[in-house]
Amino acid sequence: MRLIGATLRRIEPGEIDIEVPHRDDLTQQNGFLHAGILTTIADSACGYAAYTLMSAGSEVLSVEFKMNLLRPAVGEMFVASAKVIKAGATLTVARCDVLGWTAGEAKLVATMLATIIRR
Amino acid sequence: MRLIGATLRRIEPGEIDIEVPHRDDLTQQNGFLHAGILTTIADSACGYAAYTLMSAGSEVLSVEFKMNLLRPAVGEMFVASAKVIKAGATLTVARCDVLGWTAGEAKLVATMLATIIRR
Amino acid sequence: MRLIGATLRRIEPGEIDIEVPHRDDLTQQNGFLHAGILTTIADSACGYAAYTLMSAGSEVLSVEFKMNLLRPAVGEMFVASAKVIKAGATLTVARCDVLGWTAGEAKLVATMLATIIRR
Amino acid sequence: MRLIGATLRRIEPGEIDIEVPHRDDLTQQNGFLHAGILTTIADSACGYAAYTLMSAGSEVLSVEFKMNLLRPAVGEMFVASAKVIKAGATLTVARCDVLGWTAGEAKLVATMLATIIRR
Repeated sequence: MRLIGATLRRIEPGEIDIEVPHRDDLTQQNGFLHAGILTTIADSACGYAAYTLMSAGSEVLSVEFKMNLLRPAVGEMFVASAKVIKAGATLTVARCDVLGWTAGEAKLVATMLATIIRR
Repeated sequence: MRLIGATLRRIEPGEIDIEVPHRDDLTQQNGFLHAGILTTIADSACGYAAYTLMSAGSEVLSVEFKMNLLRPAVGEMFVASAKVIKAGATLTVARCDVLGWTAGEAKLVATMLATIIRR
Repeated sequence: MRLIGATLRRIEPGEIDIEVPHRDDLTQQNGFLHAGILTTIADSACGYAAYTLMSAGSEVLSVEFKMNLLRPAVGEMFVASAKVIKAGATLTVARCDVLGWTAGEAKLVATMLATIIRR
Repeated sequence: MRLIGATLRRIEPGEIDIEVPHRDDLTQQNGFLHAGILTTIADSACGYAAYTLMSAGSEVLSVEFKMNLLRPAVGEMFVASAKVIKAGATLTVARCDVLGWTAGEAKLVATMLATIIRR
């Protein structure tokens, strides 16, 4: 998270926002934010969102996720908003939308559906 | 790719290997390589593998991928090996296994199934 | 759809509901609705939802989908509600929640994230 | 499985083949085998493959799966071949390729990547 300049912006029970500002060294060949960066913040947001609903001392690990890249990831700032849709004793499932912000306007650039396990 | 120290190691028609050596700033809270880094190299490997089968002047974009994280990503070196399983006129589907190498022994740490579009 | 007794219940631009009543021959070994049936109605709902936003004469094909099975699929009636989250010229992405209804109460039993192509 | 005429054809430790012959009432609007049927046999094959590696008395449930539909599902017979790629204490991950057979020739029509939980 430090490496890519990401910060935690909002924490609610079962919900997390993580943001990362645009940086040239985070882009791929077309100048869009690299899918790996989008995935890093979405995966982290899903994990933290799951964590907010667990008892103290729990640890979370990502089991798997699917990411759809919906538009070229253009923007000055990217915000990953995760929300738990099912919290189970062992497994938690969360969704995360990633918005790209330019001049005060947001576009949905990616969405993730993830499974997290408690250890 | 430069940011995380990844390099292209093998290029065959429809097949690509990308490797990234372990680095402490690429790990998550448990010291395992972050899922976002594994995804970055797997996604890049799938994209390049698709690209090797396209006509000159084509560009590739990831449509979506699913990543299963199979074991803690422990290792001195990580190698993402992608292989195209269906190359179509518009869409290509590729698989990628990511191996973690420690003292000459490899373990499968993650696997991706990805859809790539030609532009 | 006929084989499993499914019917189209709601059609809006970009949104579709499909329902299927419980039937013993649609269950798996534990008496829950088989994942294949849940997937059939969710996949059909996503495809139709994409179709509602396309020009006349278009055809839709599923490219891929991911399905999370969130709870045992118990219920008298199952409703798959799909919604397009990105309609593109070639590819459309839709989400679908499947609810299981018992005695007037609904539970989220599965969720799908799907990619559809226009032909 | 009975409803769609599917049968278990091969059982090895960690590997399962399930086949289903073509039937007109299993097709979608273009005459291809419906994605829901392909998914039903692939999901069942992954679950049974996981089950072959578990201790007696275990039960399996599908956590989630991703399915890529690679070609129109044309054929006289469809065979889903699943293979476990990681068997864990709680979670198992399996892959499944679905082949469509016509006049002695097979084509890969779909592939699944699935997560299964032991109860």
